[in-house]
Amino acid sequence: MKVAIQGELGSFSHQAALRMVPGCTIVPCSRSADVFARVAVGMLAVIPLENTLAGSVAEHFDLLLTERAFIRKEFRLRIVHNLIAARAAKLSDIRRIYSHPVALEQCRNLFRSHRQLEAVPFYDTAGSVKHVVQGNLLDAAAIASRKAASVYKGRILSAGIEDNKQNFTRFVVIHRKRLIEAGANKTSIAFQLKNVAGALFKALAVFAERNISLSKIESRPLKGSPWEYVFYVDFLGGNDRLARSALRHLEEVSQMVKVLGVYRAA
Amino acid sequence: MKVAIQGELGSFSHQAALRMVPGCTIVPCSRSADVFARVAVGMLAVIPLENTLAGSVAEHFDLLLTERAFIRKEFRLRIVHNLIAARAAKLSDIRRIYSHPVALEQCRNLFRSHRQLEAVPFYDTAGSVKHVVQGNLLDAAAIASRKAASVYKGRILSAGIEDNKQNFTRFVVIHRKRLIEAGANKTSIAFQLKNVAGALFKALAVFAERNISLSKIESRPLKGSPWEYVFYVDFLGGNDRLARSALRHLEEVSQMVKVLGVYRAA
Repeated sequence: MKVAIQGELGSFSHQAALRMVPGCTIVPCSRSADVFARVAVGMLAVIPLENTLAGSVAEHFDLLLTERAFIRKEFRLRIVHNLIAARAAKLSDIRRIYSHPVALEQCRNLFRSHRQLEAVPFYDTAGSVKHVVQGNLLDAAAIASRKAASVYKGRILSAGIEDNKQNFTRFVVIHRKRLIEAGANKTSIAFQLKNVAGALFKALAVFAERNISLSKIESRPLKGSPWEYVFYVDFLGGNDRLARSALRHLEEVSQMVKVLGVYRAA
Repeated sequence: MKVAIQGELGSFSHQAALRMVPGCTIVPCSRSADVFARVAVGMLAVIPLENTLAGSVAEHFDLLLTERAFIRKEFRLRIVHNLIAARAAKLSDIRRIYSHPVALEQCRNLFRSHRQLEAVPFYDTAGSVKHVVQGNLLDAAAIASRKAASVYKGRILSAGIEDNKQNFTRFVVIHRKRLIEAGANKTSIAFQLKNVAGALFKALAVFAERNISLSKIESRPLKGSPWEYVFYVDFLGGNDRLARSALRHLEEVSQMVKVLGVYRAA
């Protein structure tokens, strides 16, 4: 089974894909739009939606809204950062640390306790490992997943260097076909409100009146309409009568409602 | 008057700062945390909060919550992207385009209509101009503001290359002292709900019952408490009796409420 991911081999998406679709073959894509293009022609994909420290991956929410893709499954991956270098590199010679800005930010204690280290922002965590290992840099290291060390044959100089251990990323499996697995008890939707006072309040009343819990709410700008927003809500409810009646009610007070997926809560 | 910004001279923050605090001296800071450190010792700062295409600048919402800083003023800057190169470069020789990933994404039509161009992600828009101009690169250009071209003495090869003209960024002036200007009619707050069913619904009822309009709602993960959120709301109301009673009411249903600023809506 082929699974598209955004980023290089060895990324956290690669790790998550192996856990969510065991034995799959990874198809790395440089841009998220390329991942959704693979989904459009029938491939599965695994994408991150939110991190407990950094927040939502905005681009993926935008693409779930505009592209044909349904969430089938969710998974929470514990993010463990590692300091990885070329085999010949020595910790005492390291001066520059490459990684994605979010990963650098999540390992600030490393820089506080080793003042000689300079953080160098790089496009991708796994890509930064590839860069230091394949270039055989002896004064540089990268911050990335354990998987990246094994893929690029780098050496882990220090493991678990993230400041906050409450660091999880929520990944989802998406596919172009809408399919609801047995036991699905969570629904992700996007909706756009009518432009009237109290519209969001009315939309949330739809759930509150039915004692349906929301597990997430997010707003994203509506492209082409400055200062208007699309709302994304996850609620605890599957393909049952109560959830369906809530969605019908929501449609009455909204301009648009799109169901992004109905699946089993992680 | 000194004004701290995140990023290099010539950034959109630089442009916004000159419009919001005319005649100011810009103090560029490499990280947003450094900007807030300047604010802590009494300096003004100008920071972006949201872009109508890319969405919120998450890190700034986090810092407004944890640091001592109050919003004094807001301003909406139209974002115009330009293709900028070294003076000796010719458009026909350009093969690589450097810029921040968000700027590259906002100029996709350029790459669609010029297939020979390769997008190269760079840490900063203005920094990418500095890179191509000071390196005198003849086969590369950068995407950035008009201001970046003048600061680094680059040449604008093509102006207004953004795909969507409805591209605005909302900037705010922040200061450590809480000061409310006359005519203030908008309030920004952050709050954390009690962990009970329908809590968000009750919080929004506080505003709906008083016919107070919300202009924005946003959620951000609460650090250290996975899958819990802090909410950010902007509402139309200043230092008046109705707004104050809404805030008192909100405190009753929340674990924490912080007023981030009371200011005049742009």
